[in-house]
Amino acid sequence: MKAIIQTDPGDPTSLTWQDTPTPTPADGEVLLRITTAGVNRADTLQAQGHYPPPKGDTDIIGLEASGVIEDANGCVRPDGTPWYAGDEVGALLSGGGYAEYVAVPAGQLLPVPSGYSLTDTASVVEVACTVWSNLMMTAEVRKDDLVLIHGGGGGVGLFAIQVTKALGAQVAVTAGSEEKLEVCRNYGADVLINYREDDFVEAVKEEGGADVILDIIGAKYLNKNVSALAKDGHIVIIGMQGGVKGELNIGKLLSKRGNISATGLRYRERADKARIVAATVEHVWPLLENGTIRHHIDRVVPVQDAAGAHQALLAGDITGKIVLAVE
Amino acid sequence: MKAIIQTDPGDPTSLTWQDTPTPTPADGEVLLRITTAGVNRADTLQAQGHYPPPKGDTDIIGLEASGVIEDANGCVRPDGTPWYAGDEVGALLSGGGYAEYVAVPAGQLLPVPSGYSLTDTASVVEVACTVWSNLMMTAEVRKDDLVLIHGGGGGVGLFAIQVTKALGAQVAVTAGSEEKLEVCRNYGADVLINYREDDFVEAVKEEGGADVILDIIGAKYLNKNVSALAKDGHIVIIGMQGGVKGELNIGKLLSKRGNISATGLRYRERADKARIVAATVEHVWPLLENGTIRHHIDRVVPVQDAAGAHQALLAGDITGKIVLAVE
Ligand SMILES: NC(=O)c1ccc[n+]([C@@H]2O[C@H](COP(=O)([O-])OP(=O)(O)OC[C@H]3O[C@@H](n4cnc5c(N)ncnc54)[C@H](OP(=O)(O)O)[C@@H]3O)[C@@H](O)[C@H]2O)c1
Ligand SMILES: NC(=O)c1ccc[n+]([C@@H]2O[C@H](COP(=O)([O-])OP(=O)(O)OC[C@H]3O[C@@H](n4cnc5c(N)ncnc54)[C@H](OP(=O)(O)O)[C@@H]3O)[C@@H](O)[C@H]2O)c1
Repeated sequence: MKAIIQTDPGDPTSLTWQDTPTPTPADGEVLLRITTAGVNRADTLQAQGHYPPPKGDTDIIGLEASGVIEDANGCVRPDGTPWYAGDEVGALLSGGGYAEYVAVPAGQLLPVPSGYSLTDTASVVEVACTVWSNLMMTAEVRKDDLVLIHGGGGGVGLFAIQVTKALGAQVAVTAGSEEKLEVCRNYGADVLINYREDDFVEAVKEEGGADVILDIIGAKYLNKNVSALAKDGHIVIIGMQGGVKGELNIGKLLSKRGNISATGLRYRERADKARIVAATVEHVWPLLENGTIRHHIDRVVPVQDAAGAHQALLAGDITGKIVLAVE
Repeated sequence: MKAIIQTDPGDPTSLTWQDTPTPTPADGEVLLRITTAGVNRADTLQAQGHYPPPKGDTDIIGLEASGVIEDANGCVRPDGTPWYAGDEVGALLSGGGYAEYVAVPAGQLLPVPSGYSLTDTASVVEVACTVWSNLMMTAEVRKDDLVLIHGGGGGVGLFAIQVTKALGAQVAVTAGSEEKLEVCRNYGADVLINYREDDFVEAVKEEGGADVILDIIGAKYLNKNVSALAKDGHIVIIGMQGGVKGELNIGKLLSKRGNISATGLRYRERADKARIVAATVEHVWPLLENGTIRHHIDRVVPVQDAAGAHQALLAGDITGKIVLAVE
């Protein structure tokens, strides 16, 4: 098959479409013929050498894809019915999306939401699993909670706003411009905070504190997040755009009986991923199908131009998702 | 009534048995005639001015007691049957234990475990609710987990060792002497770590890492605890004997998908305390009644000698619990 191979490990732009062996699905895996692959920020980190694949997994980039099952290899759906060659699916991957074929553990296959194209599907798998696993399976957002979403205008942020609103909770967001805040408002955010001009701690405290904080900043926001937290609140850290090491005021955390979790999808065990995928299909897919959650594809580019897609993402001139068309 | 009153807020030893108004139970509270009050480390902090009672609550010291209901005031047990004057009970308090009478929210009353005296009962309420709420309701210890308990030889530690073993999990403990470690071993600890001689991180890593860490040290152990954590592990901080502010390596926490909670009992809302008390009675009381959990009273002193009891506790020459006899 052909796939995007990084020919120079030291050069994140050396992403070349070239021949490489077609993967052989192991027991419990299907062989997927890929039609579309989603591009994620983490992919750019991997190209820069900062985000290696889990041990034993392919080092072809790409955390999500969609396509057609080429070889079902005896795999079954969660309800026990078989997958068949020819079935159209989405797939949560630990790598390998930028390619013609990928082997996928059956538990990481997702049906195509009704009304969705394969291209749409490839663009929502990662973000949907990320948002659902963190907001619900880790932080257990409840009706009437106040959820603070940092970077509300980003890909994760816009999706998280909509899931949170669908759960009946209130949403506060931070973003760096009035334009992004306006987009957040359109997607349902209730409290808009321009982090370049206002102190999010004060703004959130005025609302009684955040019951849940979805954080992508890390160190730089650690103590501010604790300050903004309501009693029994939960900070879930999924990104470290503001650094890795920060001071934690345990006394302040204890006075709020606060909780901090830091999570990622990629290195989880298969059973855990299957659990997340199943919950996402159960709870988020209906919201895609009935239009409660909208998502936006900024552009579709040929997979051969993966390097250009990375550059566009890093330049920051993207609203919504970039996807790679494989056929 | 008579109660221990701190006559000089600046002098933690000015604890004097003197007249003060008898409390009037509000709706949903019984009036308890106290026979025994437990002494806790937090009581010494309160006498030093560091641990004020929740707003609106009595500032008489004492977080747990036992005695006889004087006025049931129409209160009912969780199952809806009434409490009666004359019923013997234990009580989880937000204060007021060092006295002849205290008003207790009905949800914070506990039956006397069968085979237990009122004196025994007063000495286990706080520790049982603390250990159960943290190990099970916060960290959700599972069979076969490895649980690291810091200060295994302390009051909380010895109780936590036994609850953990009863749950079918493995226990590692830290303590500062071979004598204390030997006591921990007698109570069921599997892995014994002398923190003055050995690095607990290495010792726990050799066992595969800790799924749960019950921490009383805080800042000084924060990063070591993260290092000792297994994948998806949970650190529960209930004390800050090693300081309040510490550096957190979020990257390391994320690589383990770790969780940190910091909790306390005293400032929780009544409904939350009632939930904890009910769970403790359901799950821990049977372990006291069938002898699975042993507890040890070091000495019983007259309530009039509360100051002496505090001094003995602070001097560190206590194994097990000090309780105050009120009648
Ligand atoms: N752990 C996981 O499993 C997982 C999964 C997916 C994503 N992630 C991480 O989640 C993060 C977001 O991903 P994404 O795809 O949504 O990226 P994205 O689309 O680039 O969004 C990031 C957003 O962060 C905002 N931002 C930058 N600095 C900020 C600050 N100081 N305060 C508040 N917002 C700030 C940016 O908005 P402005 O222009 O307004 O500043 C941008 O909209 C990334 O770090 C990614 O690695 C983690
Ligand atoms: N948050 C809550 O709701 C709550 C409730 C109850 C108790 N607590 C807190 O929990 C802590 C323990 O209470 P306790 O009643 O068990 O007190 P305790 O009986 O005095 O036990 C404390 C133990 O800590 C050990 N220790 C001291 N330094 C240590 C270190 N660096 N590493 C490991 N162990 C160390 C001591 O043993 P060595 O002599 O071996 O050093 C001692 O046995 C206190 O801080 C208390 O305030 C919190």
